[in-house]
Amino acid sequence: MAVETRDTTTTHTTRPAVRDRVASRTAAYGDSIWTEMAQMFKQHPDPVYFGDGSPAPEAMPVAQLRAASAHAWESAPKSLGYGESDGFLPLRELIVERMKPRGIDATAGDIIVTPGSTQGIELAARVMLEPGDVVILENPTFLGAIQTFEAYEPRFVPIDVDEHGMDIDALERALASEPRAKLVYTIPTFQNPTGSTLPLERRQRMIALAREYGVLIVEDDPYGELQYDGEAVPPLRALDPDVLYLGTFSKTIAPAVRTGWTVAPKDLQTYLLAARELIDIHNDRITMRTVYHTAADGYLDAHLPSARARYKSRRDTMLAALEEHMPDGVTWSRPNGGFFVWVALPENIDVVELLGRAARRGVIFFPGHWFYPRQERRNTFRLSFSTVPEDRIRLGIQRLGGVLRHD
Amino acid sequence: MAVETRDTTTTHTTRPAVRDRVASRTAAYGDSIWTEMAQMFKQHPDPVYFGDGSPAPEAMPVAQLRAASAHAWESAPKSLGYGESDGFLPLRELIVERMKPRGIDATAGDIIVTPGSTQGIELAARVMLEPGDVVILENPTFLGAIQTFEAYEPRFVPIDVDEHGMDIDALERALASEPRAKLVYTIPTFQNPTGSTLPLERRQRMIALAREYGVLIVEDDPYGELQYDGEAVPPLRALDPDVLYLGTFSKTIAPAVRTGWTVAPKDLQTYLLAARELIDIHNDRITMRTVYHTAADGYLDAHLPSARARYKSRRDTMLAALEEHMPDGVTWSRPNGGFFVWVALPENIDVVELLGRAARRGVIFFPGHWFYPRQERRNTFRLSFSTVPEDRIRLGIQRLGGVLRHD
Repeated sequence: MAVETRDTTTTHTTRPAVRDRVASRTAAYGDSIWTEMAQMFKQHPDPVYFGDGSPAPEAMPVAQLRAASAHAWESAPKSLGYGESDGFLPLRELIVERMKPRGIDATAGDIIVTPGSTQGIELAARVMLEPGDVVILENPTFLGAIQTFEAYEPRFVPIDVDEHGMDIDALERALASEPRAKLVYTIPTFQNPTGSTLPLERRQRMIALAREYGVLIVEDDPYGELQYDGEAVPPLRALDPDVLYLGTFSKTIAPAVRTGWTVAPKDLQTYLLAARELIDIHNDRITMRTVYHTAADGYLDAHLPSARARYKSRRDTMLAALEEHMPDGVTWSRPNGGFFVWVALPENIDVVELLGRAARRGVIFFPGHWFYPRQERRNTFRLSFSTVPEDRIRLGIQRLGGVLRHD
Repeated sequence: MAVETRDTTTTHTTRPAVRDRVASRTAAYGDSIWTEMAQMFKQHPDPVYFGDGSPAPEAMPVAQLRAASAHAWESAPKSLGYGESDGFLPLRELIVERMKPRGIDATAGDIIVTPGSTQGIELAARVMLEPGDVVILENPTFLGAIQTFEAYEPRFVPIDVDEHGMDIDALERALASEPRAKLVYTIPTFQNPTGSTLPLERRQRMIALAREYGVLIVEDDPYGELQYDGEAVPPLRALDPDVLYLGTFSKTIAPAVRTGWTVAPKDLQTYLLAARELIDIHNDRITMRTVYHTAADGYLDAHLPSARARYKSRRDTMLAALEEHMPDGVTWSRPNGGFFVWVALPENIDVVELLGRAARRGVIFFPGHWFYPRQERRNTFRLSFSTVPEDRIRLGIQRLGGVLRHD
């Protein structure tokens, strides 16, 4: 129903309708990619879907979650009022303990429990960004981060990523030439979408540059606990307590429980917590207890090896199938962890056109241009192996090979 | 740990530290009122606390919630991935049905399930406000709304409230003189903090004015289902589909489950949903199912009469105790629903000083200046009766009377 703003009996004829008075930040609120994906699903009766950034349902600790939920409800009604805006204390303490083996030295007071790490990005943007401030980020990077930052009307300076993550020489040039640079957003470990991991030496240089230029590093680390081989590299936050670290249980437990956390630099914690209270007060208190009881007493650590083994097999199957079915001129990443393989096509292939044909042949992936802040490249795409059983991975990659060979 | 921004080996000596580069909106992130409240609790071994805006623990449907949670977990692992950013469909359909008796005609597609109505305020601000835009709101109003709007750097035009809610003549003058007025935020039913309810005729005038001036009405209605006596007045959204309505289960089920909803004007729904996905993607999916099973099949409707009866008795006890113990010159509201009684003292009494003395005598309330956007009045306070048993209400008001009489 339209908003009537003109009452012909009055003289207020110049006021626009509410729909024409929305804030300029809404210009970034484009159509959801899920609308486009829904179209793709209509093209084939049984498509293999390589789009899902979720953990495998069969790798979720469902029985433990159910038992933990029943345990959590024992705290009712005491835990049913308002409270714990920084998060259930035992859960924050457990997060502190779980981060220690990876070298992160934090206290429960540095943590805010958030509904996933997306809210962590939101909080960082809200505390740091004025319109026109510069956000430096990987090119390509997590689509959700691009969209969350966009609402704060920054200018993006994307830095190319190679097989070892962000190009630090390019980062240095960007910092030197952008006085309004406020924030470097990075996924240094098993990056989304490329799967690349930033080596220690690049991490040290990134930190030194951030200190030199007074910019905040926001380290998004959803996949850090899902390493399958290769050497472990410490998180940036383990190297510098002034990094804002974002963690999540979305990949190790389940996305639907909406439980992540921030580890803030001391100077920013009160701002982040105030911002968080204004957005939604606090996380669901029963769910915080459910996640706590799911992860407590070493249960999650006991569960993760089987999840990692499952993902490792799926990654290996995908890499082998790519080797078998991809034509010449196609290259792909070989990640040591996480959920994603990144594929580069010859320059003359348009990924959107390819996706259309692929969907009709029964294979769906995320086109790469979604992951570039300026959407400038059209010959890359992301394959997620986390939720796809191995026979389906083989089938999907075989179909994809057929599409690329036009047979 | 401080951020070192000056490396004496370089020439970048003009960059400030990260802590000095935060966005200007953080200026609104003052100290939490909870810090002040925590101090008050240290003044007496057993204070009567009239501050809680929560439902009574003994009025929460705990057994039903527990059973509903077990039921909800039956959907796992299917419901544990990402999904349902506008909310679990059966819950949205149930919300539509539950609003019908109050005259609200909406479809599931108009609803977004949010973590409480605070996020609804956040979404309205984000979609509508540029810095310097004018937000018109009741004076006094919900403290959380003031804080949430403040982060968008609007100019507040507070409109005084009498026993029948917002002064509509003053609203008309404000709209006529403020071309940047974008949004009217109102709690028309059992208002927080005054307990007042806007009569039908004022509602109709407010709606006509909003249409005339092209401003969005944001109707926050957390207490509408908690009416104890008097005539029911339809929500603004029942009178005009272009009102943005905010509902919540925080007062009828429990705050900790963080489940509310928005009913959007058709023109704004896609903006609100996009903004919501950027903040935290979606609500906890198990909790959405838990709330659904708690409210479905008429259970919540069967439960609410006993909750209402409990609150009505507590309100009556509080009004009777005020009658007995308040000295001359003190006046208070007589709400037909909700959780709050609003008390006005003689002008010469400073409520902050009074609260200090009251806390030492064992009674704590929320000082009224918190609820005025400009904090200009210092002789009012809010008493919440929802969580306090009747003998404790009598004890608390008796103590308060003693403090006011200086005995």
